[in-house]
Amino acid sequence: MQVITAVQALKQYIRVLKERRSTIGLVPTMGALHEGHLSLVRQAKKENDAVVVSIFVNPLQFGKNEDFSRYPRTFDNDCNILSQEGVNIVFNPGASEMYPDGFCTAVIPESLEDKLCGKSRPGHFRGVAVVVLKLFNLIQPDVAYFGQKDFQQTVVIRRIVSDLNAGVTIKVLPTIRDQNGLALSSRNAYLSETERNDALCLYQALIRAQSLVKTGIVNTEEMVREMEKIISQSKSATIDYISVVNPETLESVQKAQSGDVVALAVRIGKTRLIDNVILTIYEQPILSDT
Amino acid sequence: MQVITAVQALKQYIRVLKERRSTIGLVPTMGALHEGHLSLVRQAKKENDAVVVSIFVNPLQFGKNEDFSRYPRTFDNDCNILSQEGVNIVFNPGASEMYPDGFCTAVIPESLEDKLCGKSRPGHFRGVAVVVLKLFNLIQPDVAYFGQKDFQQTVVIRRIVSDLNAGVTIKVLPTIRDQNGLALSSRNAYLSETERNDALCLYQALIRAQSLVKTGIVNTEEMVREMEKIISQSKSATIDYISVVNPETLESVQKAQSGDVVALAVRIGKTRLIDNVILTIYEQPILSDT
Repeated sequence: MQVITAVQALKQYIRVLKERRSTIGLVPTMGALHEGHLSLVRQAKKENDAVVVSIFVNPLQFGKNEDFSRYPRTFDNDCNILSQEGVNIVFNPGASEMYPDGFCTAVIPESLEDKLCGKSRPGHFRGVAVVVLKLFNLIQPDVAYFGQKDFQQTVVIRRIVSDLNAGVTIKVLPTIRDQNGLALSSRNAYLSETERNDALCLYQALIRAQSLVKTGIVNTEEMVREMEKIISQSKSATIDYISVVNPETLESVQKAQSGDVVALAVRIGKTRLIDNVILTIYEQPILSDT
Repeated sequence: MQVITAVQALKQYIRVLKERRSTIGLVPTMGALHEGHLSLVRQAKKENDAVVVSIFVNPLQFGKNEDFSRYPRTFDNDCNILSQEGVNIVFNPGASEMYPDGFCTAVIPESLEDKLCGKSRPGHFRGVAVVVLKLFNLIQPDVAYFGQKDFQQTVVIRRIVSDLNAGVTIKVLPTIRDQNGLALSSRNAYLSETERNDALCLYQALIRAQSLVKTGIVNTEEMVREMEKIISQSKSATIDYISVVNPETLESVQKAQSGDVVALAVRIGKTRLIDNVILTIYEQPILSDT
């Protein structure tokens, strides 16, 4: 496994892969790897000749008062894991390698960036958009892999890839959860034991939403009220948002349909967590009048 | 020569070229071709296995009160010329092919877009940035060719290519002028005979700036005053801006150096024209004291 920190060196490795006509799978990460990331790496490994994992805590996607400086960094451990998974290249650039002096280009998913998480994280998604586009241009992957947990991120990335004709296939894999249902996240490391227990309310609320629609309750106001009840039972929880949205436009819907996404962000103590489910609504059997 | 209007068809042609490992030269245009464009096409032809010329009057780079609807369109004639030049592909998409419903991604060269032409053409350079990035992603050229006449455009494009690691070599070729010095531009078609004569003041002013610095007058305030004098002699001329700038940052300089660019925009009647020169300042011989 090659660990590369310089853009120029990365370009050379990619050129060699392209000359050999190797297909490339990319898993962009901020490190602090968990089983969620590894599910992406394993899928990438299955489907491509070569796998590149980027580890870059991207300053542009953190707000001024967010957790950039204390975001978990476990680089050596990450590399050990990735090496065991048979990853070919780890790209771990410094910030000045990605954003040299004079850098001034913004990539803005205009109708998507002020919705859901964008409201409380202004600038976050343009930070995501620009770094992902840079990684795509540098690594030229055939397929890039993302986790469903970061739902809005996946919508933004699909949008910019389509809008800019970036020519990368985006695959989104299911959220990986612990045995209690908590979505794996590098930020779970911030949680105390009590908070980790409180954090289960996110998934419990989502499960409740899913079961409501299966019983025919598709009015999203009612769904959200029920979810709020569940979350309010956790002492350390403060709701940022709960929303049922169209999975492409991220517009709120009034009546939930199959394929809509229930997304939420909740602060557990000082830790902001997100989670979501894609709704499946079984057709009700039509009862005969006779 | 293939004339292609659909993105999907273009992708297939490009895939074939890439499989053959053909190098690709791209000349992005808005049509209404003149010798300036053809100098780019000929250079592209010399240096690449295949040449793609895009003809797309990009609505995103026109302001609401600008000349999008009346911009000259001479498609059949353009194709005849390009066919004679041995161009391989003309890409002529419709606006909905480039910007389908839901399109919402902006690419913004933040510190460059509000300078020079950007002041009187808000939004112009983000329109240029997004269409050029799309063309680069679709066509994957080894080299893309632009004319020096659109100086700020070349600076913006170099910047976004560098910032986003787009991996395309940008070549900027000299401005082509008529026998009187008028820079060739599709918009010259708007000029009456009198206006065409008045329009010579742009280049005359630039020539004056160049000769001033060669005599040691590098104070840009003085240079601009002298240029204003020349332009004010043309009845139909209204100055938009005259500026001496650093060729990368586009910041105005107080004392001109070799490599700085004198750029101007002048309205001749209702037609806004631009032109520029790159300053060359010969070193003064150092006189001996003895």
